[in-house]
Amino acid sequence: MITVSIKDFVPEQHAEGYYLVKWKEVKTGSNNKPYIDYIFADVTGVINVKHWSPMAEHDYSFSAGEVVKAKLAVIEYNGAPQAKILKIQHLSDHDEVDMSQIVPSAPLPPQEMYDEIYQTAADISDPDLRKVVLTVLEQNYEKLLYWPAAKTNHHAIRSGLLYHTLRMLRSAMALCTVYETVDSNYVCAGVILHDMEKIREMNSSELGVVDEYTRDGMLLGHIIMGVKSVAKICEELSVPEEKSLLLQHLILTHHYYPEFGSPKKPMIMEGEIVHFVDRLDANLYDMDLALKNAKEGSFTAGVPTLDRRRLYKKSE
Amino acid sequence: MITVSIKDFVPEQHAEGYYLVKWKEVKTGSNNKPYIDYIFADVTGVINVKHWSPMAEHDYSFSAGEVVKAKLAVIEYNGAPQAKILKIQHLSDHDEVDMSQIVPSAPLPPQEMYDEIYQTAADISDPDLRKVVLTVLEQNYEKLLYWPAAKTNHHAIRSGLLYHTLRMLRSAMALCTVYETVDSNYVCAGVILHDMEKIREMNSSELGVVDEYTRDGMLLGHIIMGVKSVAKICEELSVPEEKSLLLQHLILTHHYYPEFGSPKKPMIMEGEIVHFVDRLDANLYDMDLALKNAKEGSFTAGVPTLDRRRLYKKSE
Amino acid sequence: MITVSIKDFVPEQHAEGYYLVKWKEVKTGSNNKPYIDYIFADVTGVINVKHWSPMAEHDYSFSAGEVVKAKLAVIEYNGAPQAKILKIQHLSDHDEVDMSQIVPSAPLPPQEMYDEIYQTAADISDPDLRKVVLTVLEQNYEKLLYWPAAKTNHHAIRSGLLYHTLRMLRSAMALCTVYETVDSNYVCAGVILHDMEKIREMNSSELGVVDEYTRDGMLLGHIIMGVKSVAKICEELSVPEEKSLLLQHLILTHHYYPEFGSPKKPMIMEGEIVHFVDRLDANLYDMDLALKNAKEGSFTAGVPTLDRRRLYKKSE
Amino acid sequence: MITVSIKDFVPEQHAEGYYLVKWKEVKTGSNNKPYIDYIFADVTGVINVKHWSPMAEHDYSFSAGEVVKAKLAVIEYNGAPQAKILKIQHLSDHDEVDMSQIVPSAPLPPQEMYDEIYQTAADISDPDLRKVVLTVLEQNYEKLLYWPAAKTNHHAIRSGLLYHTLRMLRSAMALCTVYETVDSNYVCAGVILHDMEKIREMNSSELGVVDEYTRDGMLLGHIIMGVKSVAKICEELSVPEEKSLLLQHLILTHHYYPEFGSPKKPMIMEGEIVHFVDRLDANLYDMDLALKNAKEGSFTAGVPTLDRRRLYKKSE
Amino acid sequence: MITVSIKDFVPEQHAEGYYLVKWKEVKTGSNNKPYIDYIFADVTGVINVKHWSPMAEHDYSFSAGEVVKAKLAVIEYNGAPQAKILKIQHLSDHDEVDMSQIVPSAPLPPQEMYDEIYQTAADISDPDLRKVVLTVLEQNYEKLLYWPAAKTNHHAIRSGLLYHTLRMLRSAMALCTVYETVDSNYVCAGVILHDMEKIREMNSSELGVVDEYTRDGMLLGHIIMGVKSVAKICEELSVPEEKSLLLQHLILTHHYYPEFGSPKKPMIMEGEIVHFVDRLDANLYDMDLALKNAKEGSFTAGVPTLDRRRLYKKSE
Amino acid sequence: MITVSIKDFVPEQHAEGYYLVKWKEVKTGSNNKPYIDYIFADVTGVINVKHWSPMAEHDYSFSAGEVVKAKLAVIEYNGAPQAKILKIQHLSDHDEVDMSQIVPSAPLPPQEMYDEIYQTAADISDPDLRKVVLTVLEQNYEKLLYWPAAKTNHHAIRSGLLYHTLRMLRSAMALCTVYETVDSNYVCAGVILHDMEKIREMNSSELGVVDEYTRDGMLLGHIIMGVKSVAKICEELSVPEEKSLLLQHLILTHHYYPEFGSPKKPMIMEGEIVHFVDRLDANLYDMDLALKNAKEGSFTAGVPTLDRRRLYKKSE
Repeated sequence: MITVSIKDFVPEQHAEGYYLVKWKEVKTGSNNKPYIDYIFADVTGVINVKHWSPMAEHDYSFSAGEVVKAKLAVIEYNGAPQAKILKIQHLSDHDEVDMSQIVPSAPLPPQEMYDEIYQTAADISDPDLRKVVLTVLEQNYEKLLYWPAAKTNHHAIRSGLLYHTLRMLRSAMALCTVYETVDSNYVCAGVILHDMEKIREMNSSELGVVDEYTRDGMLLGHIIMGVKSVAKICEELSVPEEKSLLLQHLILTHHYYPEFGSPKKPMIMEGEIVHFVDRLDANLYDMDLALKNAKEGSFTAGVPTLDRRRLYKKSE
Repeated sequence: MITVSIKDFVPEQHAEGYYLVKWKEVKTGSNNKPYIDYIFADVTGVINVKHWSPMAEHDYSFSAGEVVKAKLAVIEYNGAPQAKILKIQHLSDHDEVDMSQIVPSAPLPPQEMYDEIYQTAADISDPDLRKVVLTVLEQNYEKLLYWPAAKTNHHAIRSGLLYHTLRMLRSAMALCTVYETVDSNYVCAGVILHDMEKIREMNSSELGVVDEYTRDGMLLGHIIMGVKSVAKICEELSVPEEKSLLLQHLILTHHYYPEFGSPKKPMIMEGEIVHFVDRLDANLYDMDLALKNAKEGSFTAGVPTLDRRRLYKKSE
Repeated sequence: MITVSIKDFVPEQHAEGYYLVKWKEVKTGSNNKPYIDYIFADVTGVINVKHWSPMAEHDYSFSAGEVVKAKLAVIEYNGAPQAKILKIQHLSDHDEVDMSQIVPSAPLPPQEMYDEIYQTAADISDPDLRKVVLTVLEQNYEKLLYWPAAKTNHHAIRSGLLYHTLRMLRSAMALCTVYETVDSNYVCAGVILHDMEKIREMNSSELGVVDEYTRDGMLLGHIIMGVKSVAKICEELSVPEEKSLLLQHLILTHHYYPEFGSPKKPMIMEGEIVHFVDRLDANLYDMDLALKNAKEGSFTAGVPTLDRRRLYKKSE
Repeated sequence: MITVSIKDFVPEQHAEGYYLVKWKEVKTGSNNKPYIDYIFADVTGVINVKHWSPMAEHDYSFSAGEVVKAKLAVIEYNGAPQAKILKIQHLSDHDEVDMSQIVPSAPLPPQEMYDEIYQTAADISDPDLRKVVLTVLEQNYEKLLYWPAAKTNHHAIRSGLLYHTLRMLRSAMALCTVYETVDSNYVCAGVILHDMEKIREMNSSELGVVDEYTRDGMLLGHIIMGVKSVAKICEELSVPEEKSLLLQHLILTHHYYPEFGSPKKPMIMEGEIVHFVDRLDANLYDMDLALKNAKEGSFTAGVPTLDRRRLYKKSE
Repeated sequence: MITVSIKDFVPEQHAEGYYLVKWKEVKTGSNNKPYIDYIFADVTGVINVKHWSPMAEHDYSFSAGEVVKAKLAVIEYNGAPQAKILKIQHLSDHDEVDMSQIVPSAPLPPQEMYDEIYQTAADISDPDLRKVVLTVLEQNYEKLLYWPAAKTNHHAIRSGLLYHTLRMLRSAMALCTVYETVDSNYVCAGVILHDMEKIREMNSSELGVVDEYTRDGMLLGHIIMGVKSVAKICEELSVPEEKSLLLQHLILTHHYYPEFGSPKKPMIMEGEIVHFVDRLDANLYDMDLALKNAKEGSFTAGVPTLDRRRLYKKSE
Repeated sequence: MITVSIKDFVPEQHAEGYYLVKWKEVKTGSNNKPYIDYIFADVTGVINVKHWSPMAEHDYSFSAGEVVKAKLAVIEYNGAPQAKILKIQHLSDHDEVDMSQIVPSAPLPPQEMYDEIYQTAADISDPDLRKVVLTVLEQNYEKLLYWPAAKTNHHAIRSGLLYHTLRMLRSAMALCTVYETVDSNYVCAGVILHDMEKIREMNSSELGVVDEYTRDGMLLGHIIMGVKSVAKICEELSVPEEKSLLLQHLILTHHYYPEFGSPKKPMIMEGEIVHFVDRLDANLYDMDLALKNAKEGSFTAGVPTLDRRRLYKKSE
């Protein structure tokens, strides 16, 4: 089934596809009969949808946050598009929804990103580090596919954690070819592991939307959780102590500044690189996003995550 | 044997006792024969000691940092006291040295302090917390007896860690009687556990003198090590997750400010108390030490650990 | 007379008691006749109150901020309780209002708190300090009974200044038993005097509500005012100069950090304690308040006065 | 008597004048007889002076820090000038020493500076403020003549406080002609009073050399002492409360930043001016001093009191 | 023509004068015919103005931001004044509008301020500096007459840049008479040049209202632009290198603190003065403005540009 | 000629080669005849060298800081090597000295580094930017070959500026392949131009040793000088205004933080990259240097340029 994007809805036509239920309320019409008022959304827009005269229990079973399969009749009401439900279904195993059509998502397919990261990890020459990284990747495989990198900041999109990790990894590996005394094994491992506990620091739906931090996330934070987690896996895999310790150090120091959560700064060159590519990737992501819709030859509004800097988009 | 304190040495008399070898060098005399040049120390002072004409291998076997049993002949040389060795021995199991006579030590007997802390912990009403704290105390018993609380800062004395913990504990327990909504179990546990990993963050001799931080201490620090260690013990003792988490949180937050190593501030009242008594005890220790030798009605020099504050000693 | 709390008002019943007039406006009804629209409040809630057909001048004589004695008929209007006035009176000398039923107040009776503080002061062994502290307590007795400790921050409740002082005093006296070289006379005096000039820094009604800072409070602040005031009393009581100076120093330094109003840090141990118990009591008060209504096992919203920290309430 | 400056001493000639005894020690010569070894100083230099064969008690009665009248025989010894004492006397009432020839002093005669300040104060149109300022000037007249403005920083010279005040006053009065809504009475009073308590914050010899801060100076500081002192004088002179308060406010705020001792910033325009001319005068003094001996077209070393700035001296 | 100020409009009378079109919108009346809805403003107030039944193209040709000549009939509508247009015209060369009646403006006539500044510059004794300053003044003459000193901060009024420069110049020249080692030529030049590139950093209408920063202003800022501009003019006028360099240095350093845009602090006394009079004038302007409408004996609200300080207005 | 390195000098043998005269003094021997005392140095060490009985004027013509060609006879004196001069000559055009054998130098040949940078610049696709960068490279060619990047900090070695630029360029170009929306032309230009004015900010000998900052360097700094210089070249080469402006912006912002000399932060993504590779390269250089001589499995001392961080060298 080819989903019709909401921005392409045409009044007086039918539209079919997968949509996110953003909001739902059961109301009573002027005829004193109940109807269901929805807002449906996909990555292109939102639309008000009415389910008139719902009868069956099934009709009432759809909830906000759910992606549904629906057939709609589009009309124009008061100058704005509206739709009424012809048919609505929960997703089944047969449905193959492209989530990137539903919510803002990383620009690359999750599986592809995962594979590239995994392959880079598989090339780590140190067998201990390789084992740790591959194990962690495998253990987190399912959530990694859709987990965002943040609740509201940079990479707060579906599969954002994977995308952030991948770009950092590409950058970091490239820098390792410039700085020959750096041990690329640790850089690779550090990049892949550095934010992994975000998966347990916050709760994300499969849409990549975070509603809240977890209790552990609040009381400890992903950096400390990451140190503990890597220490444990290393112990389980009998990784020599120094290697385990350095991996923990890479995670502990990747935010660099105490006020951002790292009680220590990197004491090894590899940590310096992990931090810099982390920071750079986050900033470039935010700049890119802010500039995307800017007019050429003009300035954006101040970007909160970039110290309220206004950015300039070159003419051309 | 009653040790004669170095400050009580009288020229032309003999002295006997336990002394710390602070420094040692084999030299050649004007007669072209070797002799050993020592500096001996105890808590009251230092003295230059010569071992003339050492012959046996045993004569050369004493090293800096060692406490020895010695018999000395005191003389006056160039207006200053000096001594020559009559007899010198390594310590044996029969020797009962009062270390507080040798190096600066906490003003209370270590075993007594340990017992008071242990007893307070034994009164924790929550069985999980009690088990954790008693286990940790028992595991660290031997080192706790002499471990200092720092390399150079507050409580950098023999048994300083125990003394610091004890005074904090007394203060904290007293505060719990004022603030009724505070859970004294967590306060007690937090105080006792908060600095325990200093035992693995630095290396101390039995004299309570730290020469260097450990590799783990440098790369992670005692706060992170403490979080990991408590998490592990709680897991081994099957402590419920929330309790384990809160203990970790108390350790993680006890330095309060990120620039002092705590990435989070306390989110529970108990953590607020642990931090305040920690800070207060450290400051009062340093103030007390600086004022000890000050003249009444006058100011000390600036105290480095107290933001270079000069302190005032009341007249009376 | 037993006041019926607003939260206990039952429609179709009468209620009688003391209430705070929070807001008042004379309006014109649809019948073109005037009526008075009130909001009444006590510590349990607020209610809209109508005075229909007021006739006498007396009917118009009640103003916002005043506590009145009233008899009300409660009804339900549009699903919410409302009341109309049957009888309304200004307070007379015969009325014994328990103000803690009207506005948020310290949890202990003011007189009791005053007595405990006074008694502790009476136990100061130094006759000069004792004289100063008792004099100051006596001079401020009436206002102390209801004065709050702040306009909007910690202890901004009726009798909050007394409550803050009392808890600090209990804490500080307890700490003095742990730290033997500390002079508890100065600690006791410092705690009791430290915030006393808040009584002249801000204006409070007898309800413990501050509307504005005074001119002196704005231009100098309670710390500087406190230094001046203590200096003056000491002079009047012929207290020796050093003692006066140290009391002034305790007041001057109790905020510790220049950016919080203390140009100097404590140069005596007693000042260190005064500061720490001050800070600790304020923080614990705010934490306690924020946690009071939190759900177990969950986090509060960020608390503004605690660096926007979110707090955790333990399960149980 | 015309003093011969030390820099003008000529070997093999006699020199007579007033000199500062900077250092003194009684020694034993190779002939086993005692002699007195001095260093004499004036504003132009220092010289080693020997008193050979002192006999009388009087010969031994001169001490470091004292200004003496002496007659010397200058010689050259090992390529450097030296002198021997022919005659040495304590100062008597007949001696009229120009102290600015002995120690670094303000470039204007103290009395002249005092008179100009006094005259400006006498022109204050508000009788209350005028009375306060004139009273304070008169009370401090004697010490003002030689008091320095600091122990080591800007204007740490004889009569430095007067010089600093005078230049500030000239600047401030000039600025009042530019800013018409400013009340020049308060500006004038504020400038003259702002540092007056430095006279009680530190101890200075009549040479304008400070050896130590006073107890009050250490525990309170000249700003708080100034507030108290002005408040007291105003009370004694029955100055209306608001005027007294504003004078106190001017003193309290003149350092502007809390970390420099002012808990509040100016809330009146007059305070803004007092602060700015204070800061500016201090900085220009330090710049001028550092540049005095610099080579044209070159940079000085970093000046500690100016954030280690290096200064540039224009060519020409 | 004598303009009637908006605050003086009287219902049922006619008013004539020059007014600023603040806002304009073409609407459709209840009679289905178009009319034009305006808000007119002058320095005394604003008024809603209707142009009923506009017919000619000319009627539609007035735009927001334009000053127009208009004849109005004033009425009262719903208790507020309103006006309808009788006649409206674009400005012609014959109109002599006093802009200070239209928008907030400096209190002195622009030409007069320019002349005083120019005259002071003409008195610079160094021919190179004089040439530079006079050239810059002449080149910027037209815009200087109305340019404001800021978009929203201090001196954001018509001719504000000139007014700010003039008061700084008066202050600075006065200070030069106090500090004799200062070279008043550089001070004078520095003051006049310091903010000149604000003319190219932001865009201002002739009303002195800035809508936006320029591209160069955003990417470089007026300080860097000023350095470049002075360097260029000096090169064109063959000013010796050191003189050019020092002028650039004065501009570069006038904000003093790096976080305010000056990468270096002044290394010459002249720069110290330029900075201080700049800062002082800005602060006094903001204080004066905030105090203008304050009640005597009371405090203003916190002033954002003065660190939220509340200011006090003396009684009298 | 093959230079014998100083560390390879063998007593009783002759050595020949190019050496740096580090220090020189003419002395008088015990035979009352003059001789010349030298310290010679190369990158491997230093040695004391005597020129006995110098006769000709030529013998006296060598000065500290000069590289000479010399033939030496090595001896052992008091247990340390010493040498006497057999022959000494100024360098002539025939001498081909490998300066990297004389002083610490970048690890790559300067010409090779220059060529790689030049080639990368030649690949810039924008003809304006390419022209600017190639012109600047050509204009600075000779000095670039040996100029250091700093007086005492990172890359304070011969050809350090070139080496720093090259590594940044390699890193930056690699990052451009990861971030596709970044314009690599600006990144390349920004990297090459960013520090170019260090050549005029400080004075370096051909040995890459800086003795002092220039007057322009002190008063403006290389960032401001760079902005001015690029602006001028762009004008000369008729580069469109926006391109010139963006190049200036890249230079102005490359230190990122105001306190490090950049009054603005980057407003374009290209500036973000230039800053990050600059910072990263400097840090990695300092880390690498500090770790070079560290023992495996141990920590270095605190590195001043890295916030006194101690670094860890992995075991293996």
